[in-house]
Amino acid sequence: MIQNDLFLRMLKGESTHRPPVWFMRQAGRYLPDYMTLKAKYSFFDRVRIPELAAEITVMPVDQVGVDAAILFSDILVIAQALGMEVRMEEGKGPMLPNPIRYLNDLDHLDVERTEEELAYATPAIRAVKSAIADRVPLIGFCGSPWTLLCYMVEGKGSKEFSLAKEFCARQPEAAHQLLQMITDSSIRYLKMQIAAGADAVQLFDSWGGLLSPDWFNQFSLPYLKQMAHAVNQEVPVIVFAKGAWFALEELNKIGASALGLDWTTPASYARSVCGPNTVLQGNLDPSILLADRKTVAVETKKMIDRFGRGNHIVNLGHGVLPQTQVDSAKAFVETAKNYEYAAVQRGI
Amino acid sequence: MIQNDLFLRMLKGESTHRPPVWFMRQAGRYLPDYMTLKAKYSFFDRVRIPELAAEITVMPVDQVGVDAAILFSDILVIAQALGMEVRMEEGKGPMLPNPIRYLNDLDHLDVERTEEELAYATPAIRAVKSAIADRVPLIGFCGSPWTLLCYMVEGKGSKEFSLAKEFCARQPEAAHQLLQMITDSSIRYLKMQIAAGADAVQLFDSWGGLLSPDWFNQFSLPYLKQMAHAVNQEVPVIVFAKGAWFALEELNKIGASALGLDWTTPASYARSVCGPNTVLQGNLDPSILLADRKTVAVETKKMIDRFGRGNHIVNLGHGVLPQTQVDSAKAFVETAKNYEYAAVQRGI
Repeated sequence: MIQNDLFLRMLKGESTHRPPVWFMRQAGRYLPDYMTLKAKYSFFDRVRIPELAAEITVMPVDQVGVDAAILFSDILVIAQALGMEVRMEEGKGPMLPNPIRYLNDLDHLDVERTEEELAYATPAIRAVKSAIADRVPLIGFCGSPWTLLCYMVEGKGSKEFSLAKEFCARQPEAAHQLLQMITDSSIRYLKMQIAAGADAVQLFDSWGGLLSPDWFNQFSLPYLKQMAHAVNQEVPVIVFAKGAWFALEELNKIGASALGLDWTTPASYARSVCGPNTVLQGNLDPSILLADRKTVAVETKKMIDRFGRGNHIVNLGHGVLPQTQVDSAKAFVETAKNYEYAAVQRGI
Repeated sequence: MIQNDLFLRMLKGESTHRPPVWFMRQAGRYLPDYMTLKAKYSFFDRVRIPELAAEITVMPVDQVGVDAAILFSDILVIAQALGMEVRMEEGKGPMLPNPIRYLNDLDHLDVERTEEELAYATPAIRAVKSAIADRVPLIGFCGSPWTLLCYMVEGKGSKEFSLAKEFCARQPEAAHQLLQMITDSSIRYLKMQIAAGADAVQLFDSWGGLLSPDWFNQFSLPYLKQMAHAVNQEVPVIVFAKGAWFALEELNKIGASALGLDWTTPASYARSVCGPNTVLQGNLDPSILLADRKTVAVETKKMIDRFGRGNHIVNLGHGVLPQTQVDSAKAFVETAKNYEYAAVQRGI
């Protein structure tokens, strides 16, 4: 039995007294204790060594008081699962030295390796669950196939991912083959995470907003749908497609329990497109957490007010910024925890 | 008298037989003749030497057949006008070695220097006009104050401009002072461009889409409005706020003759928000121009169809990508030029 199951109850559509709160990258660079571990261990050691993954994942539960933990890992583990080398270089972001550029580059990828390559995840997640000790639920995650394709073709981070888009424009069949391989591997990995104890999963389509609506419907949506359908009978699925406001109506039909919103999408717009019963997650601009605590509290409350009573998970619109003060993150979390739907209903 | 004034007539709301076409970065890196000049002269030489600015600006008129030319320059000239050093390093993007971080950094900026620092623009624009020889109109431009602030505070390009947003979060009054200085300098520069012969101007809010609606209304919209109002009695003003779909309703009220759209904003959405009488500009995904000519033609026609009859300027949703083939750019332009509103009306 999870002691604080507010997050899961909200995902199931139950009535709650306040919205649950967690935030993207909550186990990360704004936490001094994380930076201490970062200085000692490589990125993939932090992901793979059960004690480290557990310590990092639980930090924001202990230190900031969030209502859910999210596994410390990275979306690029799927590129590794398929057989690609991924380097995490300090201050440079991810680098894949042998990117996919042509159809025959897919010959080097193997979906069947998924369980073996990601075998470390099972003991890591078990250690995380043990450290959480049933206080809050654990969120597992995967990147979306489109977002993985971006990195696997571009070979690194990018503003526009124009090589990835060139690949889709010039070799659409190869792109779809790659997307299907990523999808198949991701579904296997999601099932591993759930078997090891993940209580919910989030799919991150971080670069969905780089696509036109036509291309989103071709290159992202069908694969997100496959992933959601593959696991949504087992655990709730949250889909966060950053920048893809134009696809909310379609995303609302793919079997997700909640949809994440970035800070450019007004709650009123999302409600008008998705209806009042869709659980929405978000969406404070992470920059607000760089202001003073009072501003953080005022803006967080204003944001929650806009989503109305219920069907809302408080979160940022994207990952917390590294220069955020822990106190500001606490002010954000505390504002959500002190919010009372009943008081709102009484007009207070 | 401008021989092909289709672009200006569309901006004035007149009925035309087809939509005019030009595209962002049309005088740039996808043109082999531009690359030849790029190899010989520094970026700011290309901007400042009248013969070079004229040759580059006119290239797409001669080689691709666009209905309007846009001055070859850069939005960062306003940072220079105010007294900041701007370096354009090959393959690295812009770099401002002494960025603004605190209120007293503004002491080094001086709006009064604008005309002197940008004095080269007048002979450059006159040379451009002479080279165009009244074939098509010339578009002048400025960045938006918010977008300039992004570079002037961050000191370089960025995905998130988190230092710029931190500046706004922590020192909002300093941010507003800086935005006003940029606005004042930009208005002076726009007036110089118009006096020298610019027939229309475009305001580029390239990073408006990084802002929440609340912040856009605070840190971008009022300054765009000042700029539009300062010159819209003289020439038509196009406002392009990339990613700021959420602000279209407000942008539609600031006195612009047309609003630019990126490729994530469906024509149907923009029409529903702005009404049928607003001239909209855009919005093909530049990645489409990486596909074969036939796909370019099909997708361009589909895009024009979606905007309906009239009140539309054909453009890309952002700058043309460097790896674009000139033939693909021509296919885009020719599709617009062969489009017939009358045929659409007859149901062909």
